[in-house]
Amino acid sequence: MSLSRRKLLIGAGAGLAGAAALPALAQTAPAARTATESAPPARRAHGKVRTLNGWSLPHRMNGGVKEFHLVAEEFEHEFAPGSKAVVWGYNGSTPGPTIEAVQGDRVRIYVTNRLKEATTIHWHGLILPSGMDGVGGLSQPQIQPGETFAYEFDLVQHGTHMYHPHADEMVQLAMGMMGLLIIHPRGGDHVDRDYALLLHNFALHPGTYRPDPSVMQDFDLWTFNSKVFPAIEPMVARTGERVRIRVGNLSMWNHPIHLHGVQFEVTGSDGGRWPKAQWRREVTEIIGVGQMRDIEFTAVPGDWAFHCHMSHHTMGPMGHEIPNTQGVDQSGVEQKIRKMLPGYMAMGQHGMSEHQEHTDSGHMKGPENTLAMMAGKGPFGNIEMGGMFTVVKVRDDIAPGDFSDPGWYANPPGTVARRVSNDPSFGAPVRRKNT
Amino acid sequence: MSLSRRKLLIGAGAGLAGAAALPALAQTAPAARTATESAPPARRAHGKVRTLNGWSLPHRMNGGVKEFHLVAEEFEHEFAPGSKAVVWGYNGSTPGPTIEAVQGDRVRIYVTNRLKEATTIHWHGLILPSGMDGVGGLSQPQIQPGETFAYEFDLVQHGTHMYHPHADEMVQLAMGMMGLLIIHPRGGDHVDRDYALLLHNFALHPGTYRPDPSVMQDFDLWTFNSKVFPAIEPMVARTGERVRIRVGNLSMWNHPIHLHGVQFEVTGSDGGRWPKAQWRREVTEIIGVGQMRDIEFTAVPGDWAFHCHMSHHTMGPMGHEIPNTQGVDQSGVEQKIRKMLPGYMAMGQHGMSEHQEHTDSGHMKGPENTLAMMAGKGPFGNIEMGGMFTVVKVRDDIAPGDFSDPGWYANPPGTVARRVSNDPSFGAPVRRKNT
Amino acid sequence: MSLSRRKLLIGAGAGLAGAAALPALAQTAPAARTATESAPPARRAHGKVRTLNGWSLPHRMNGGVKEFHLVAEEFEHEFAPGSKAVVWGYNGSTPGPTIEAVQGDRVRIYVTNRLKEATTIHWHGLILPSGMDGVGGLSQPQIQPGETFAYEFDLVQHGTHMYHPHADEMVQLAMGMMGLLIIHPRGGDHVDRDYALLLHNFALHPGTYRPDPSVMQDFDLWTFNSKVFPAIEPMVARTGERVRIRVGNLSMWNHPIHLHGVQFEVTGSDGGRWPKAQWRREVTEIIGVGQMRDIEFTAVPGDWAFHCHMSHHTMGPMGHEIPNTQGVDQSGVEQKIRKMLPGYMAMGQHGMSEHQEHTDSGHMKGPENTLAMMAGKGPFGNIEMGGMFTVVKVRDDIAPGDFSDPGWYANPPGTVARRVSNDPSFGAPVRRKNT
Repeated sequence: MSLSRRKLLIGAGAGLAGAAALPALAQTAPAARTATESAPPARRAHGKVRTLNGWSLPHRMNGGVKEFHLVAEEFEHEFAPGSKAVVWGYNGSTPGPTIEAVQGDRVRIYVTNRLKEATTIHWHGLILPSGMDGVGGLSQPQIQPGETFAYEFDLVQHGTHMYHPHADEMVQLAMGMMGLLIIHPRGGDHVDRDYALLLHNFALHPGTYRPDPSVMQDFDLWTFNSKVFPAIEPMVARTGERVRIRVGNLSMWNHPIHLHGVQFEVTGSDGGRWPKAQWRREVTEIIGVGQMRDIEFTAVPGDWAFHCHMSHHTMGPMGHEIPNTQGVDQSGVEQKIRKMLPGYMAMGQHGMSEHQEHTDSGHMKGPENTLAMMAGKGPFGNIEMGGMFTVVKVRDDIAPGDFSDPGWYANPPGTVARRVSNDPSFGAPVRRKNT
Repeated sequence: MSLSRRKLLIGAGAGLAGAAALPALAQTAPAARTATESAPPARRAHGKVRTLNGWSLPHRMNGGVKEFHLVAEEFEHEFAPGSKAVVWGYNGSTPGPTIEAVQGDRVRIYVTNRLKEATTIHWHGLILPSGMDGVGGLSQPQIQPGETFAYEFDLVQHGTHMYHPHADEMVQLAMGMMGLLIIHPRGGDHVDRDYALLLHNFALHPGTYRPDPSVMQDFDLWTFNSKVFPAIEPMVARTGERVRIRVGNLSMWNHPIHLHGVQFEVTGSDGGRWPKAQWRREVTEIIGVGQMRDIEFTAVPGDWAFHCHMSHHTMGPMGHEIPNTQGVDQSGVEQKIRKMLPGYMAMGQHGMSEHQEHTDSGHMKGPENTLAMMAGKGPFGNIEMGGMFTVVKVRDDIAPGDFSDPGWYANPPGTVARRVSNDPSFGAPVRRKNT
Repeated sequence: MSLSRRKLLIGAGAGLAGAAALPALAQTAPAARTATESAPPARRAHGKVRTLNGWSLPHRMNGGVKEFHLVAEEFEHEFAPGSKAVVWGYNGSTPGPTIEAVQGDRVRIYVTNRLKEATTIHWHGLILPSGMDGVGGLSQPQIQPGETFAYEFDLVQHGTHMYHPHADEMVQLAMGMMGLLIIHPRGGDHVDRDYALLLHNFALHPGTYRPDPSVMQDFDLWTFNSKVFPAIEPMVARTGERVRIRVGNLSMWNHPIHLHGVQFEVTGSDGGRWPKAQWRREVTEIIGVGQMRDIEFTAVPGDWAFHCHMSHHTMGPMGHEIPNTQGVDQSGVEQKIRKMLPGYMAMGQHGMSEHQEHTDSGHMKGPENTLAMMAGKGPFGNIEMGGMFTVVKVRDDIAPGDFSDPGWYANPPGTVARRVSNDPSFGAPVRRKNT
């Protein structure tokens, strides 16, 4: 295929815009060629949704149709400073760029496959013709390496949806291929802040550089938008603003997502927005694999943790079948090992919090390309977290539409829990009668 | 016990039908013996529910009581062509036959234990007297090998329920003992199609012939009604019909079940039918272990995937802790191994979809009695699935009550996603500014 | 810090009671010292909630503020007779004592850290100032070993909540640190019985005495309030009473909790009580990690099982990757092994129920400090359960407020499933036509 032919296609305006059928190559009108030849999609920030650590894909109008272009490809991705891997995604990012459109739009989405195996895209949650559903072999032929397919359909609904491959699905998901597809209601929206993120897990074993797709449960990295704490950006809001967080899950676990500081309302799912009478007040919501949930709340000033509540999922990489050192006095062993390994430190007799101390201070060093088990510094010291953890930062003085990190609260509103004694025998602790 | 005594019991008409108490052997009226001696239950297809790959158990009326007979036993079961195992179930099938009755019925269910250990049956979700609840040791003595017990109670509710052992429960569930118990509302129902299935998992390790009950998580076969794709029958409907799918879970995972093409409504659970104001629109619903969910939708033409959204659960048997070959150039190794193993093929450098190619073509052969990781041919090629996956097939020309497979859509309604280029550098892919 | 200084603090009455800010040591009025010096909190049973196998923490009033004192510490805990471990908890128990208060209360909670690493307490689900939220490093400095911190806030809501560390959280949760925090509505409550329990899991490997915090999935003990069946106390009620069970989850699994005998209503969560139109009828409810659920029902006479429905979670410790003995005739092997190990018994050819037989009879002996896989004797024999299992016992003659175990039903109400034959070829079992 010649270069001019290629350029033609991405901009094949009126020729491709017919609603009845997406024309094949031969049907494209030659007149369209030069007119659109040098018009790349505009690179402006388009979205009304803030995809954490992500971005929204620009489109261009073509005869009344919104055209998007996704490119499936392999690239290097950083989970947090100190941990990179070769992953698969779209347009150089995992998750791929968020697609945003408006109810009633007709969209045409070009999908170019630059992987070395076939792929497809399934538009998860969308009501569309069977032939546009993207299940390889079932609703369309696979998109072979090097090929570009066009999907085209009307958006008859609004809500929070996803896109992901439905071809060698286990591998392609495990490698990072996924994205958000958000359809705004025709009449505008009612929230002041609109965040979105996808839950995922990567089996990036310590010292390696590619996710392992055969792992079903023992993942190393538990991610929000393919990032781990502390590299996940905070969610910022001004006091009193109405905030929505759209959370989707394409991992291998049903994650219970917890927010501090407010009782949020669960207002909808990938099945659409629910009637208000069905909104449920929660502080923790299970988001199942393949599910999306919209949660909403009115912002209260403070620094509020937002995380999966499974404690291993807010940790960096760690072994799950290592010897248990809790309560084990390793002092004798430590002396002996030091003769052979100068600087060796026995740890874990009284908990694991010292791990962050020693890692941050540089005393402890893990395998290459491997994050520490715990990380993060807050205004009051080590946060001792990793993985699926970030902070909702609400301040009185955030400007509308400003998403920049305001830093930590030096003096949080209200008072802070305070030390009243440093004597371990403080008070007279009540114990139960019969214990 | 003599033969005539045995025959007496199954048909002990008026004597057993008393609502107040199920009479003991000695209380049976001798006069009833000969009259009912040779009347086996009628073998007609009774159900209004379509149990995927399954069947509904015939009953017979006995003095106003509906009598059913379940036989717990061991037998050979096929998960899909190429994978058989010795399992446990009822009346020769796993799941056992579906029991269907009507709200207000009084039922008597005989349970014969032909296993070599004790069993019981718990009627999951039913409102009944404590002594009929079927928890071995707690609500009744265990049913010893060779014994038959009678359960008898009124059906005071309607909805979707299950039956399963409550004796050596972990083993007996792991071996396949479970079934559906569906009570239709007295006044008739409102759906046109009524499908039912149970989620399960079998630890049938490659090359073996019996499920392993000690496995808690790493299962080999993820099943709908103890079948795996592509051996699971499709769910057929005519365009515009109201369809219900009743899904129960007796596995070891809370499975997120996803349906393409429609936003379905979740209309009830094993806790009964919910008021309409509580119906929730979803495209993916988590069905917890021990839960049932009824989902309903109006059929839209197309071939729509219906599956668990955990990607490993739509795969055939595979190892979860094997070396990661993604991105590994194995060409040198392949040459060397071929000297010793002629025909050896290195795979998995660029994904795993080639596995289905090589398996289907016969180039790759796994252990005996072991399915391939991916399987299934659709109208457009390999579907690359396994396990918990089937298709809802909706056509304009299906006759009411016709459940036969209409085959694939050669030309699905609307248009099909189409190839518009085979040049990998198609278009000008937008990438985010700062990546 | 001197002893008098210490005593001062626990009772620093008016000085600490100011609503605007919790005063630092230096701000405490000297006049307050002697007056409150010898007044320990009253040791009366305070709660309206029945914490299974647990207790409610007494408080004392101090200038209009309810003062509680939690002490984080290490101690020995018994999961059931035959299984003890060194765990961490509060005031000598795991879960720690339940904190009960009333909506509108101002509470001050002293937390003394007698562990050898830092800790904090997060008040899960509470609406409070950011500085009282208890996330170490983020909302406060960590509570170092030996230190006591004071948390103080108004209870603006009512409902079912939890407390747990947010510092080295994975380890401290794995060791047993958690508790319930229940806020009663100002206007009184509407239930007759109010039970509460926390789901958890302990990786107490066979033969060991300390939980292993590195385990993510393969737990040995699945617990209600850190106890396993049959050591979990029953939930007692009088026929017709309105019963609430509050279930929270701080384990590593989303547990589907099942109750026999009734369709309960799910009436609220840690996000508060739901409007009645949202109450959902269920028999099994998934309680996610970090979630709480209130369920309510009207008591029906009987002995009703209440348990997690994942069958491995109602078992005692067991290996999950052991050789599969189902269907394996071990008679030859048994003879040979007996020559070396007199008394050896091959088991598991026809199920595992014989395990309880042999354990109870003393023929089988596992590792020290390790429970049997199955346990429990009911009125009709072995119950063959363990872990997350207990019984709701409803009787006509229970006095209001009486929680003592009424024993088993010798003759449950209604009739009991009965043996009608001991001939394995009883009846004429119906099998499906085409199988």
